[in-house]
Amino acid sequence: MQQRAEQIRRPGKTIAFVPTMGYLHEGHLSLMKHGRKVADCLVASIFVNPAQFGPNEDLSVYPRNPERDMSLAENAGVDILFLPTAQDLYPEGFETYIIQENLPDHLCGLSRPGHFRGVMTIVAKLFNIVKPQVAIFGEKDFQQLAVIRKMTKDLNFDIRITGLPTVRESDGLAMSSRNKFLSQNDRKSALVLYECLTKARARVSRGETDAGEIIKTCETAINSKNDTDVDYIRICDPETLNDLQTIDKPAVMAMAVKVGGTRLIDNILLFPPGTEPG
Amino acid sequence: MQQRAEQIRRPGKTIAFVPTMGYLHEGHLSLMKHGRKVADCLVASIFVNPAQFGPNEDLSVYPRNPERDMSLAENAGVDILFLPTAQDLYPEGFETYIIQENLPDHLCGLSRPGHFRGVMTIVAKLFNIVKPQVAIFGEKDFQQLAVIRKMTKDLNFDIRITGLPTVRESDGLAMSSRNKFLSQNDRKSALVLYECLTKARARVSRGETDAGEIIKTCETAINSKNDTDVDYIRICDPETLNDLQTIDKPAVMAMAVKVGGTRLIDNILLFPPGTEPG
Repeated sequence: MQQRAEQIRRPGKTIAFVPTMGYLHEGHLSLMKHGRKVADCLVASIFVNPAQFGPNEDLSVYPRNPERDMSLAENAGVDILFLPTAQDLYPEGFETYIIQENLPDHLCGLSRPGHFRGVMTIVAKLFNIVKPQVAIFGEKDFQQLAVIRKMTKDLNFDIRITGLPTVRESDGLAMSSRNKFLSQNDRKSALVLYECLTKARARVSRGETDAGEIIKTCETAINSKNDTDVDYIRICDPETLNDLQTIDKPAVMAMAVKVGGTRLIDNILLFPPGTEPG
Repeated sequence: MQQRAEQIRRPGKTIAFVPTMGYLHEGHLSLMKHGRKVADCLVASIFVNPAQFGPNEDLSVYPRNPERDMSLAENAGVDILFLPTAQDLYPEGFETYIIQENLPDHLCGLSRPGHFRGVMTIVAKLFNIVKPQVAIFGEKDFQQLAVIRKMTKDLNFDIRITGLPTVRESDGLAMSSRNKFLSQNDRKSALVLYECLTKARARVSRGETDAGEIIKTCETAINSKNDTDVDYIRICDPETLNDLQTIDKPAVMAMAVKVGGTRLIDNILLFPPGTEPG
């Protein structure tokens, strides 16, 4: 892969890269379709990265369907689908990791210690192997996107990071490979995440500035559903991820909720009156 | 620098890179002369990296002489001398670091906590900025070379790491920018490091296998000199840096000794009979 990347870049061609853990859905495909447009060569990878799963997490049951993924990726315009093995990327004796001092100490990083260390490490490795000029990530994993943007800047990777909007089911549920684990009842309860987020967004656009008040309303709504267990609901600065008490500038509201046994995340940007972009 | 690197590589040219902290001596120049031979373009950097100095170390007094360095580098065939500022490389809010789980827990890493984290971080940053195909380091910093080789492999940097032999004064003292701090008496005491190392090498080549015995002899010899203070003397596996009790394969003997107030390091390879290379 590294040699092919070098060959592609040599005559001045550009590479766009979409790293994934596979079990592709419309969210991934939207990243690929964008990549198809912005570079000469589109590379996607599928690798369920053990380094970003904790000991009690769902690594062993994470959904996989490589055949289906290959045909979906091809249809989305992927030129090269890179499918490394764990043995390729973490051979015996592997011991180098990338860490960040602040961003991972928020949101998902608190309930998933080591998760972002694993994410940054694999992304840096893939960057060095695939050598893209552009790498594309989904905004659903908002903290992941922030962490990768910061890593790319801090370590001087010569790569533009593009974040694209979350793709949703028609009823609003954010697309995720983990949605497959939801029972029919879970699936209904799961709608409460996006409902809460859109209501919060509306309240903020009408002038509500009290973050605690909004979070309390959401918490009540989520707890009223069957089989839900809130991990966190936060309203924070989109860059530093520091909590905001008063929403007096654009903010991100992010949450992680276990529905049935499945941990779902979602987020939305909040704009106080007069701060909407465009 | 990053743009120039891209321009240089575009038509298929190669870049050799020699990162330094300046105050150049013959050791640095030997790395540059090698770089001159193995690539089309030779880039050197001078940057006294704050991230690799501890709070009580000699960052503020580390010797600097940029004018002299520039002319030495030019004479050694350097095409581009890269002189970033600390503000360029560690702007406000910098928070991403590279760590290793095992190699830094030996030798200098024990007396300089965080040192190799700082070394790896700056080297990775410079690799991403300078984009070399070859990077050249001195074997005097044996552990640094091991750590960088491992980082390069683990993070899939597409860069060949070359280590070159320590350059010594005519009396054997390893060249180092820090030698400038040695008083005339320190300078005499400092000779004991290389004397011990060469004697150890001779003993091992004659069949001595007891690492503890060799270390004890060295310790006694060094302590007999004025103003010396042994930080460590170790005989270890050259790759893992794990201590060896019995020298039954090629090993590295490494030491750090304070002479006057100046911390000096040196090392030598030990070959039991029949294991010499070539």
